[in-house]
Amino acid sequence: MDIDVWNENDLLQAAAERSWVLSRERIVLYAGANLPSEAAQKAYSAGLSAYPAMGPSFDKEQPETDLVSRLEVAVRSEICALFSAEWAEPRLPSCTIANMAVFHAFTKPGDLLLAPSADHGGHLSQRRGGTPDLAGLEIEDLPFDMEKCRLDAAAAAAAIRKSAPAMVMLGRSVMIKPDELAPVVTAAKEVGAKTVFDASHVSGLIAGGAFPNPLSLGVDVMTSSTYKTIAGRPHSIIAGRIRGDGEKLAALIDQKFLANFDAGKLPSFLLTLQETRAGAKAYAARVCHNSQVLANALRELGIEVIAPSEGEQFTHQILLPLADHLNPPQVMQGLEKLGILVGTCKNPILPGRHALRVGTQFITAQGCDNDYLHMVAEKLAKALVHLCL
Amino acid sequence: MDIDVWNENDLLQAAAERSWVLSRERIVLYAGANLPSEAAQKAYSAGLSAYPAMGPSFDKEQPETDLVSRLEVAVRSEICALFSAEWAEPRLPSCTIANMAVFHAFTKPGDLLLAPSADHGGHLSQRRGGTPDLAGLEIEDLPFDMEKCRLDAAAAAAAIRKSAPAMVMLGRSVMIKPDELAPVVTAAKEVGAKTVFDASHVSGLIAGGAFPNPLSLGVDVMTSSTYKTIAGRPHSIIAGRIRGDGEKLAALIDQKFLANFDAGKLPSFLLTLQETRAGAKAYAARVCHNSQVLANALRELGIEVIAPSEGEQFTHQILLPLADHLNPPQVMQGLEKLGILVGTCKNPILPGRHALRVGTQFITAQGCDNDYLHMVAEKLAKALVHLCL
Repeated sequence: MDIDVWNENDLLQAAAERSWVLSRERIVLYAGANLPSEAAQKAYSAGLSAYPAMGPSFDKEQPETDLVSRLEVAVRSEICALFSAEWAEPRLPSCTIANMAVFHAFTKPGDLLLAPSADHGGHLSQRRGGTPDLAGLEIEDLPFDMEKCRLDAAAAAAAIRKSAPAMVMLGRSVMIKPDELAPVVTAAKEVGAKTVFDASHVSGLIAGGAFPNPLSLGVDVMTSSTYKTIAGRPHSIIAGRIRGDGEKLAALIDQKFLANFDAGKLPSFLLTLQETRAGAKAYAARVCHNSQVLANALRELGIEVIAPSEGEQFTHQILLPLADHLNPPQVMQGLEKLGILVGTCKNPILPGRHALRVGTQFITAQGCDNDYLHMVAEKLAKALVHLCL
Repeated sequence: MDIDVWNENDLLQAAAERSWVLSRERIVLYAGANLPSEAAQKAYSAGLSAYPAMGPSFDKEQPETDLVSRLEVAVRSEICALFSAEWAEPRLPSCTIANMAVFHAFTKPGDLLLAPSADHGGHLSQRRGGTPDLAGLEIEDLPFDMEKCRLDAAAAAAAIRKSAPAMVMLGRSVMIKPDELAPVVTAAKEVGAKTVFDASHVSGLIAGGAFPNPLSLGVDVMTSSTYKTIAGRPHSIIAGRIRGDGEKLAALIDQKFLANFDAGKLPSFLLTLQETRAGAKAYAARVCHNSQVLANALRELGIEVIAPSEGEQFTHQILLPLADHLNPPQVMQGLEKLGILVGTCKNPILPGRHALRVGTQFITAQGCDNDYLHMVAEKLAKALVHLCL
């Protein structure tokens, strides 16, 4: 490992060039990656962040904060329109922090949380051993249907009825197709459990109508990051169905969770949401189509792919299982040397094994066509054969 | 209250002009305010934030993250040099979130925290009813010396010896002079309490040698925001004296607290720290001098001022007590209409009363001279007489 210390000026220069390098000199297949538009990159307003703007919109502690309040209102309004939500919270800096706030707002220490297991793509901000621990929650894993590579909705509903959790955390970092949510929502309502869907990976697909909207299906709260299938700067989206939930969360944030929330990010966030509203339908359809094209192209080249079956909905993700003898970080590093940036995950349908998690959302945002996807498939297939066999 | 909805383009335009307006058309006396340099404003790198960089430097989960790791190392190194620290944590987005992480890393639910009271300037991220509640802490107020307008160090040391807390949280949002820390640190060491100093307001003065360095005085951990007496974008600094503490905190962050930490902010953060290293000594001396000049000028104009006594060290803050019949938000809004942006606080030496908390760090960064300070004093005095009497 080369950890020679660079001159700080060289570091700053490399940082300034990083977007260009990613866009032009890499094949970015990491499933949790995207770049904001040029306009959104430039829209940071240091003046808005020069001092805090604490408290509710138009009732803030600091002087001359109405512009921040107006931007909060505008961002909330865009989020509500994109996700058919009744309320939105625009201030938290990442989805992990957003999930943390949601745990604190809607549960108390000792409460039971049903959450996706790490084995099936549960994120550290969702699962056992991660963020929910900070809220003092007891955690049980949600059941997973390995044959269909998705939540086992019937078993999940049964578990909810049996253990009556305070909260059910849905969504995962590995989602190659939508889960069936209706049985889970019905059971949760019966026992009075709050339902939360972490849509970090698929929020742009939801906005574009290519993935079921959890709020429309009766889920109470949706959280998301903003740099995967939504192409913005890292931040969080929180949106919900029940107005009182939004008030409860906002009160927590005002009293205990945030002082300065870096309001200078709001203009960039607003632009990203406007761009999403304008472009998400075409983009989301293209992303899902490209995943299917890439999956087919890889299979034609003899690569095993975990992807939706005939007639099922694709997302931005497909999985390429790794043979048991392979070291996932070494495969990732081998691909990195070839300019292919991709992540690994646990293979959700083969316990103990791993997979490459390939995402099409970045290359689709770059405007890739079928020829490019076939080139990517060939490079990936060649590299995998070279690295793995 | 005018809450007409603006056109989103007008909002974005106003946001883009906000730094200019603050710098040229306002007198910013809010004590928790500053603007990053032009270079630091421009140094955000969306490419570094295009996907997460989770885990320790040079041992991250995602591909091609060495540039992020190098920047983390560079930022840590600058922080350690500025504050004579053994370790630094550069990833958390605000000091409130930083304090939250520190509570989780170094205490467990049910532990006792001694913390400054809201009455004496304790910040929501430090005190009873705020962030420590989220970590399940029991909280007792630290004693305050109203005559000297600072921590009652002897009484605090006695309280620590009596109640043996797990943690003592030092520093406040209202600090017109340094506290005496030695007796507190000695007592904390005796009972094995972790000491934390929230230097959000005075970190730039510490870096410039115009305020005692808590780490040099034996405090274990220092936290800070980055847009008050340090002139950067909102973020946090965490630094400490004991290497194992840094490892414990980093492990918490990796496992439970953050996934994507918006590494694109690191270049801007690095520049701000470089600028602080180069300029803090002159700036901090000037800030404290200007507070004294402003206090004297206001007194000469018949305005009551709470400020250090002869021979005591000034900070960036002085306090102007408000008469009992005045509504603090109304005074703040009245001054806002005159282009003077200043905040209010509880009057720490007169229970039940309030004060204006006036800060000189913003106008000093703009290069104000004595004439400007006298003009500010006159405007402020005139406004206060007009608004208050």
